[in-house]
Amino acid sequence: MGRKPTKIRVIPLGGLKEIGKNMTIIEYKDEMIIIDCGLSFPEDEMLGIDIVIPDITYVMKNKDKIKAIVLTHGHEDHIGALPYVLKKINVPVYGTRLTLGLVENKLREHKLLSDVHLQRVEPGETVQIQGFEVEFIRSSHSIPDACALAIHTSLGVILHTGDFKIDYTPIDEQMIDLQRIAELGKKGVLLMLADSTNVERPGTTMSERSVGATFENIFNNTRSRIIVATFASNVHRVQQIVNAAHKHNRKIVVSGRSMVNVVAVAEELGNLIIPDGLIIDVNHIDQYEDHEIVIITTGSQGETMAGLSRMATSDHRKLDIRAGDTVIISATPIPGNEKTVSRVINQLFEKGADVIYESLADVHVSGHACQEELKLMHKLASPKYFIPVHGEFRHLKQHAKLAENLGMPKENIFTIQNGNVVEITKDYGKLAGNVPAGPVLVDGLGVGDVGNIVLRDRKHLAEDGLMVVVVTITREGGKVAAGPDIISRGFVYVRESEDLIDEAKQIVRGALEHCEQQNIKEWSILKSSIRDALKDFLYAKTKRRPMILPVIMEV
Amino acid sequence: MGRKPTKIRVIPLGGLKEIGKNMTIIEYKDEMIIIDCGLSFPEDEMLGIDIVIPDITYVMKNKDKIKAIVLTHGHEDHIGALPYVLKKINVPVYGTRLTLGLVENKLREHKLLSDVHLQRVEPGETVQIQGFEVEFIRSSHSIPDACALAIHTSLGVILHTGDFKIDYTPIDEQMIDLQRIAELGKKGVLLMLADSTNVERPGTTMSERSVGATFENIFNNTRSRIIVATFASNVHRVQQIVNAAHKHNRKIVVSGRSMVNVVAVAEELGNLIIPDGLIIDVNHIDQYEDHEIVIITTGSQGETMAGLSRMATSDHRKLDIRAGDTVIISATPIPGNEKTVSRVINQLFEKGADVIYESLADVHVSGHACQEELKLMHKLASPKYFIPVHGEFRHLKQHAKLAENLGMPKENIFTIQNGNVVEITKDYGKLAGNVPAGPVLVDGLGVGDVGNIVLRDRKHLAEDGLMVVVVTITREGGKVAAGPDIISRGFVYVRESEDLIDEAKQIVRGALEHCEQQNIKEWSILKSSIRDALKDFLYAKTKRRPMILPVIMEV
Repeated sequence: MGRKPTKIRVIPLGGLKEIGKNMTIIEYKDEMIIIDCGLSFPEDEMLGIDIVIPDITYVMKNKDKIKAIVLTHGHEDHIGALPYVLKKINVPVYGTRLTLGLVENKLREHKLLSDVHLQRVEPGETVQIQGFEVEFIRSSHSIPDACALAIHTSLGVILHTGDFKIDYTPIDEQMIDLQRIAELGKKGVLLMLADSTNVERPGTTMSERSVGATFENIFNNTRSRIIVATFASNVHRVQQIVNAAHKHNRKIVVSGRSMVNVVAVAEELGNLIIPDGLIIDVNHIDQYEDHEIVIITTGSQGETMAGLSRMATSDHRKLDIRAGDTVIISATPIPGNEKTVSRVINQLFEKGADVIYESLADVHVSGHACQEELKLMHKLASPKYFIPVHGEFRHLKQHAKLAENLGMPKENIFTIQNGNVVEITKDYGKLAGNVPAGPVLVDGLGVGDVGNIVLRDRKHLAEDGLMVVVVTITREGGKVAAGPDIISRGFVYVRESEDLIDEAKQIVRGALEHCEQQNIKEWSILKSSIRDALKDFLYAKTKRRPMILPVIMEV
Repeated sequence: MGRKPTKIRVIPLGGLKEIGKNMTIIEYKDEMIIIDCGLSFPEDEMLGIDIVIPDITYVMKNKDKIKAIVLTHGHEDHIGALPYVLKKINVPVYGTRLTLGLVENKLREHKLLSDVHLQRVEPGETVQIQGFEVEFIRSSHSIPDACALAIHTSLGVILHTGDFKIDYTPIDEQMIDLQRIAELGKKGVLLMLADSTNVERPGTTMSERSVGATFENIFNNTRSRIIVATFASNVHRVQQIVNAAHKHNRKIVVSGRSMVNVVAVAEELGNLIIPDGLIIDVNHIDQYEDHEIVIITTGSQGETMAGLSRMATSDHRKLDIRAGDTVIISATPIPGNEKTVSRVINQLFEKGADVIYESLADVHVSGHACQEELKLMHKLASPKYFIPVHGEFRHLKQHAKLAENLGMPKENIFTIQNGNVVEITKDYGKLAGNVPAGPVLVDGLGVGDVGNIVLRDRKHLAEDGLMVVVVTITREGGKVAAGPDIISRGFVYVRESEDLIDEAKQIVRGALEHCEQQNIKEWSILKSSIRDALKDFLYAKTKRRPMILPVIMEV
């Protein structure tokens, strides 16, 4: 009896050809683990959608083989889909301290916390998950406790970098364990999956510490209130604001739901060190002079509902922007958010604030490795096979090119997409088919029930509105008994367009009479006659194409 | 009898607190001229809107005083609203060669060309427009024949820079006339209005010629087809592509409606020099080898309907992207277009093309002055008063700060918004009231008929779709004669949600019965009962809030 050769199969379900919803399956023998379980935010054309999660059809099919979900770090694009996936399969979740702290919050909100086994792992530790030996290697990123993962198998080591940068002077003084990666590389890494986000940027990413120097400079020269907006999860950034505030005798007000949450979790877990009494309640802010206050808030992406926007539009219950305030936007707009961020900057200036943002000062650094850091990672790990991950196609492509330029054979690089299966044995590495891996749209309570037809209709309605035409006809004889009535929304301002609506009714009557003369009784034909006649009429009159919904009732 | 002192009033109707729809009124004694007449593109929340133009209420009120529209250059945000404004007031239009060439095209499309008097002016020339002496000063920008304007009055000179950069090595060897600006400044400029677009950028904008050097380098090293996407109006860019193609023995195919138009106009007017036989018909492209072809196309902003996108998605009738093609995107994404541009880049890579874009090589330079150039302009013109224009509020604010840092008294700088009136006499300069100046939305044939209510409805429909509920009741007795029928669009995928719709009908029946029991007959109350009951039911079931449209018919 011939034995099948031992295989590793790597299947990304998210994170490729996109920045978001990272999720990768590692299959080895008859077992699987999942690395990360993230969400992404909807594209512009996904109207009304709240979030997007990976398609887990393949996971569900292999429910019994899945042994664990292993997390690299606590960002939404790596943990955000957990509640949805854990509702379907209950497996243990492994992660580091802060990562699990954030996961706990999330599961609590979804009332799932008591059902799920969370297994905390220390950076440097190796855990045995059934047949998988999973080593957590300390990394550095824009959130503490980020790890790369080395998965040890009989065929060799799979190294997943997670999201990383190389910061020689990290805030928590816990440097990425380059030595361990080098050691693994020296022994031989079979496959590496590595972060491609910043592959288009030459040079290296600045140390997080450089932002602290800018803060210091600003704090030194400012007597007004200081308001800093940043990502809640960027705990090291928050730490640097805390340090600057402490040094300059300013109290801190924490604003924004996720900022309050993360600060609480990170402080409790020891990732954030805050001197006693430094944080004050927002209600006590008036007891201090302007030069004694720092407000740390969410909203660095211009999100309408977040702290900074609310302050800028006087929509915040307790805080407002005042003339003379110094506002630091300590973040870069994520692609697609440029205009919302710019809007908030404009609003802040209009309120008379002094606004400091990235194009004016070094108030932000990225959490992802640039070209020179990626080269170092490739050379230290020197894997046999390579899959660029965490990037749009342009990034994956450039990362593949970077690897090639470093001397890697082209055929050992897999520039693939979500759902592709990469199969590796001791003899070969190859593409081996596909599993389902589209985006699953979440809208309110609905997961996956909004598909292309619904989105197409929303787009149509968004562009030109709609016109509902209602006619009641008699069951016998098919005569018009009432109507036609016309209701429009999102099409024209009705009070100014009464004539247009009256003419439209005439058109509908004409279409119905025509059908009657032809002795046409089928509702589908009546409806399409109404729709066609109206469509042409409205386009000629307005050059718009509202959705037309004919409704026929019978009495 | 006391005489009123002579006044200049400057009233921007567009272009302030926005990048787009530039339009400024200059009033002097009892006459007015308008500088520029541009459009802007809709903000994200202006669903379904085609373009946005300035509010010309004040212009219409002063119809008889308007003597001319004077154009600085031919970009859409400076000429795009002309057809709409000229339909309302017929005044002569002054501009340089290429500017009027582009205006002619536009007026022809709107069937207005024969009605409008276009007056061509040469750079350096001064024209008398009734009481206004308007001097056209050669400038440089990302379109040829751009001018600054000096308007000479008895009170002094108003200098409007138009959009400008300082290019010491312009492609057409016609440098911005810094000497004339210096001369005016030496004699004394009363008021300057200056371009603020790039005020956040330190240093100077690179010369257009630097892009040519990059092209040369790419052409030198490429044997495949070369496809270059850029702005059609950037004639100097096109000239450099033409030069490179000619030198490297490549024929040129021009693709995209506006590219074809602008190339024709610019060549006819002498702004673009193309050797005979260099341009070939797209249908003859197969007669040439790959290394003999350059395609110049529109679509550098990722516009779905433009040449490059169509090629990238195989939606172009005659051209397609092939593996191995070299595609140069010779432009920067305009804020807000980052994601569409990125999408096209990804699509091109997927087609196997090699894509060269701004983050990888110097294939674009801006047409606007950076900080050092602005400083030079301020120092040469040394105006008494200053209005920063052409920018979002953040830009206007930074530009005001730049002027202050150069020594200008704060009270002589007007950081204003559209509609504000700046009044200048020999004794003072001050803000003096407001005129109407909101955005006017153009949707199809409708100008200004889509207002907040229509947009709010479109947004509601876009997010959660709609549900139409139709009931026919008897005139006597108010009994249900037919229905309720329910139709939904953009809400849920109906086939999968039959149960939900059935339950919704039950809810409607319940609401109607309740009204009947209470002897309620008023339609408005019936409708709101239906709406409220359904709204709560649907939100509980789906966490969505579709628009609910109850329709009652009577027989």
